[in-house]
Amino acid sequence: MKPVPATMTAMGFDAPGAPEVLRPETLAVPSPGAGQVLLRVAFAGVNRPDVIQRQGFYPPPPGASPVPGLEVAGQVVAVGDGVTMPLSGQMVCALVAGGGYAEYCLAEATLCLPVPTGLPLAEAAALPETLFTVWHNVFERGWATEGERVLVHGGTSGIGTMAILLGKLFGLEVIVTCGGPEKCAAALALGATHAIDYKTHDFVEEVHRMTGGAGVHLVLDMVAGEYVGRNIKCLADDGRHVTIAVQGGVRAELNMAEVMRRRITLTGSTLRPRSNEFKSLLADEIHQTVWPLVVDGQLRPVMDKAFPLRETAAAHARMEAGAHIGKIVLSIDEQTA
Amino acid sequence: MKPVPATMTAMGFDAPGAPEVLRPETLAVPSPGAGQVLLRVAFAGVNRPDVIQRQGFYPPPPGASPVPGLEVAGQVVAVGDGVTMPLSGQMVCALVAGGGYAEYCLAEATLCLPVPTGLPLAEAAALPETLFTVWHNVFERGWATEGERVLVHGGTSGIGTMAILLGKLFGLEVIVTCGGPEKCAAALALGATHAIDYKTHDFVEEVHRMTGGAGVHLVLDMVAGEYVGRNIKCLADDGRHVTIAVQGGVRAELNMAEVMRRRITLTGSTLRPRSNEFKSLLADEIHQTVWPLVVDGQLRPVMDKAFPLRETAAAHARMEAGAHIGKIVLSIDEQTA
Repeated sequence: MKPVPATMTAMGFDAPGAPEVLRPETLAVPSPGAGQVLLRVAFAGVNRPDVIQRQGFYPPPPGASPVPGLEVAGQVVAVGDGVTMPLSGQMVCALVAGGGYAEYCLAEATLCLPVPTGLPLAEAAALPETLFTVWHNVFERGWATEGERVLVHGGTSGIGTMAILLGKLFGLEVIVTCGGPEKCAAALALGATHAIDYKTHDFVEEVHRMTGGAGVHLVLDMVAGEYVGRNIKCLADDGRHVTIAVQGGVRAELNMAEVMRRRITLTGSTLRPRSNEFKSLLADEIHQTVWPLVVDGQLRPVMDKAFPLRETAAAHARMEAGAHIGKIVLSIDEQTA
Repeated sequence: MKPVPATMTAMGFDAPGAPEVLRPETLAVPSPGAGQVLLRVAFAGVNRPDVIQRQGFYPPPPGASPVPGLEVAGQVVAVGDGVTMPLSGQMVCALVAGGGYAEYCLAEATLCLPVPTGLPLAEAAALPETLFTVWHNVFERGWATEGERVLVHGGTSGIGTMAILLGKLFGLEVIVTCGGPEKCAAALALGATHAIDYKTHDFVEEVHRMTGGAGVHLVLDMVAGEYVGRNIKCLADDGRHVTIAVQGGVRAELNMAEVMRRRITLTGSTLRPRSNEFKSLLADEIHQTVWPLVVDGQLRPVMDKAFPLRETAAAHARMEAGAHIGKIVLSIDEQTA
């Protein structure tokens, strides 16, 4: 292994703003604390929360790096006290609480997943955030079970594509909304049962039509706002509504008589501020339940585009423009090559 | 057993309206269908849904009697096909889908619970609706577990008093709101941990003060409307909000970012329209888990007042005035004696 230098390049920002506030900075390479490992980052995933953090609306939780980046893939180059797993030198991907946009990044050892043979590191880096988020919110908070129908907005986003892929592998019918015929076609090609172009069709009417009036069992909601009432109209009795982002605004008006009469359940979650204990349990479940499908090639993230680290601003601009299909990643190697 | 007559007196209404629309009528005594029993009703419980039905806002579900009354106690005087339990001649109480305000009432055999020695029939008739409702919504939908704190509005209502009693027996701290010092004192005497007079105190502030800022784990909500937002402020992270009535209006505004960030869960249910299969499973669970506490005298309903059947209008007026503490029942024997 190459020696670990004292300093590294990371991509941070001084004050919130447009993508252009992102600029390289030189930081000390951190040392792994108890239970942690240090990764030499090959690729870092770009996620919507990174954009919101850069805009100034999602400050990092206490103790987390101010540098954005919630998922990485790379080699374990140092190991902290108390790490009993044989991780040194291994290629892993990991969910991290921040700091992914950097040449080196700390990760909890229990949140590292081994990169299997044949999985490119760019794809490995694109898995943890959406995989952890979709798994927890669809199957745990949302109780989705085989044969159920799920409505997912933003079918070609990182979350949306992961929801289609996981849903297909675990026996769900996934109905998605997308903006435009090209994205609808992409979602259908990935395995969505139906794709609704929200720009030309009312998704409530379409869901009723497609399900013969029966509705869906679960909505994975990343819009909130006025979508909430419309989502509930898409739900069957006993349906669940799980909110993981509020891109359409935070205020929602509910009819509580309908919630009660139809036994609707609304909940939601954010992944980043959860405890390491929680995330470790989730990682362990995913390792046992989903990772075998990654190992044998059945589950691969949908990749949009890789940007070199120095072009992080362009990566953010692409996500904000909404033109991407699947995951955007940053290539750290190119930066430093 | 007395012979079963061909006709009976019941208390119905022609058109929705004030309590005075309730008037006696003569109806054919129904015959038990498959799986049903016929009860000679001794007492019938009065519940809020009966009042709402009389007001015209809660029509009976398909197949149910148009006569109000969701719970009764009395003697089994006829048994339909396929009833394998030895119920004939037994004193039972039962959850019924309607028709309780009458001398005879059909009940599903699987929804009958035996009246134990020492339990007056008036009290037996006062148990099923609140016991089934509170059990299902607090412990099943609301996942309340030993040591948790629950906020219950209307602490001296039938539901409120049952929530206090069940909560105490199953290790919950029950914080209630009541209107006025007399009702607060009654709730505390029953075992509520705290009672907040909502007429003189802001319950959100009081819950925070009483819990040292930690909040409650569950709200059993029968108000909805603008209470929903205030209830959520009372909830700890991961808190649950279960709506069982909408006395304060159906429209609620939610902050979905807060729901997501604090992993709040909102749901609710109504008991009457549920399937007999569901109610039978619930009755079976209650029979096994709660009924032993009724048998040994640890659980007794809080009784407000019994009215003869012919004074049903006065019973409804009392409930609407909100002056009652505990359960109001109708005495059918007095009517026909």
